[in-house]
Amino acid sequence: MYSLKEQEAIIESAICSLRFVKEPAGLYEPLEYMMSIGGKRLRPRLCLATYNLYSDEIGDNILSPALALEIFHNFTLLHDDIMDRADTRRGQPTVCKKWNDNVAILSGDVMCILAYKYLAACPADKLPQVQALFTRMGAEVCEGQQYDMEFETQPIVTGEEYINMIGLKTAALLACSAKMGAIIAGAPEEQAAALYDFAWQIGLAFQISDDYLDTFGDPHVFGKKIGGDIMAGKKTWLLVEAIRRAAGEERKRLNAIMAMPDNQAEQKIAAMQQLYIDLGVKQDAVKAIEEYHEKAMECLSGKGFTAEQLELLKEFSASLVHRED
Amino acid sequence: MYSLKEQEAIIESAICSLRFVKEPAGLYEPLEYMMSIGGKRLRPRLCLATYNLYSDEIGDNILSPALALEIFHNFTLLHDDIMDRADTRRGQPTVCKKWNDNVAILSGDVMCILAYKYLAACPADKLPQVQALFTRMGAEVCEGQQYDMEFETQPIVTGEEYINMIGLKTAALLACSAKMGAIIAGAPEEQAAALYDFAWQIGLAFQISDDYLDTFGDPHVFGKKIGGDIMAGKKTWLLVEAIRRAAGEERKRLNAIMAMPDNQAEQKIAAMQQLYIDLGVKQDAVKAIEEYHEKAMECLSGKGFTAEQLELLKEFSASLVHRED
Repeated sequence: MYSLKEQEAIIESAICSLRFVKEPAGLYEPLEYMMSIGGKRLRPRLCLATYNLYSDEIGDNILSPALALEIFHNFTLLHDDIMDRADTRRGQPTVCKKWNDNVAILSGDVMCILAYKYLAACPADKLPQVQALFTRMGAEVCEGQQYDMEFETQPIVTGEEYINMIGLKTAALLACSAKMGAIIAGAPEEQAAALYDFAWQIGLAFQISDDYLDTFGDPHVFGKKIGGDIMAGKKTWLLVEAIRRAAGEERKRLNAIMAMPDNQAEQKIAAMQQLYIDLGVKQDAVKAIEEYHEKAMECLSGKGFTAEQLELLKEFSASLVHRED
Repeated sequence: MYSLKEQEAIIESAICSLRFVKEPAGLYEPLEYMMSIGGKRLRPRLCLATYNLYSDEIGDNILSPALALEIFHNFTLLHDDIMDRADTRRGQPTVCKKWNDNVAILSGDVMCILAYKYLAACPADKLPQVQALFTRMGAEVCEGQQYDMEFETQPIVTGEEYINMIGLKTAALLACSAKMGAIIAGAPEEQAAALYDFAWQIGLAFQISDDYLDTFGDPHVFGKKIGGDIMAGKKTWLLVEAIRRAAGEERKRLNAIMAMPDNQAEQKIAAMQQLYIDLGVKQDAVKAIEEYHEKAMECLSGKGFTAEQLELLKEFSASLVHRED
């Protein structure tokens, strides 16, 4: 088995060797740009990690499908940025900002199609199962994005609704990545299914920690401005919980903070951070992340994984959950 | 072999039995709407027709991939309507008009993904070849749309550039449809390739006739307003040819017509129609359609098709080329 560091290097070099440059440049340049501005490459890394639990033979039959996951992820980001009217992504101008919406729509479309091209490099006998898994995930991610948009104008979002949304929008792709690596490596069905459930729970923990870091992260480490979700009034785990808990005076306080204008950003963010602390939402978010992390590990127990396999999965999930960026 | 009428009925009933209704409704309703507002269902019909040249066993393994072509086609229309700022499609409000751009983007995305879901119902041993064909087509359609948009602001478009663009935007999907039916039926490779080339040429003839009908069609039969392309200044076969031919006085006349404001629509359309007649562009468009039609039939000769098979293909292509709507 390769170390996670080695796996990360393999994925990075595979992504660097990706070449889309093709006519018309107006269609393919934004795609190259989107893939080049980085990110953690979590999905292909997870796919390679679960594959590597069973096989050390790392060739195009696993790297190409792993890249398909990253290409698909970037396609969804490209279109999300249009829908969210986002100007920057990973500190760089978004495609819809650098070019325009039409370019972002069409380049995103071809990106989605190319994801299926890379997916198809998996072993032919695995393609039907891999494609069914990938396509189900693709629909789920769209469903999650739809719920996320609907929540913006929905005054009350229950914790259950929130978990369902992030499950579709974030966890489904990680779960697909984990199971895909296992399927391609020819893992036992029960273990492939366990890896899916494991990664789904990790995905929930990952998204809640993302919500947490957006409000309480270290701006120097996190890489983006703190408080973006607060200013956007986004229904994060923190806000959903705060709305559920705040009563009486605190409810008035919450409403007052949410009503604060954009030109008072600093005060608004500070006030909301304090309210999250006072309501115990901050510390409970950390607890929730740990609970989903534990649930994830439980999904793996009793499935016949070796100690070595479990060790690698534990290390991978810890890096996702105990992150600062 | 079934008659084209019987094949059409089989496709219609298959499309009517399609059910997307699913949560969230905000994501899937626009998709149902788009599929329900009709169209000629040419692509699934062509796919079924070429399949039926070899097999009478019509089940889900051909109908589902045939529907994938129609779903994919409607996905591209849904996104094209955003990019073209179109208000109506087939006499109905477009999704971006009836709902909004974000809904149209996301519903289109899930439609593209669902197309791959339906595609995957083809025989497992055929999936790698079918998927590679479908994915190559998908990228080509995006490339064609990109060129089409670039041509809007490009003063001179050569005939060659125009044919390349409509090849990618229109012919590629018909060619894919024809070859896919043949592949799934287990046709000889040479014949599957010939059907691809045949449908590509038919696609060119089909698009030029579409350009022709938009300017010279019978509004009652054509189903949409005549002159839309003229008002949009679209680089159609007619305009590309007119720009190439017009010199001296006629060039001045052409420029003057193109400069006429939108509030003089009737006069502008009438003047351009007359110029097309005076330049011989109108009659030559009809000739060009016939030439591509003949080229299409030539692609089939000497490939060992039976008289019965050729008869059906001839009938199908004639219905596409000699159309009034």
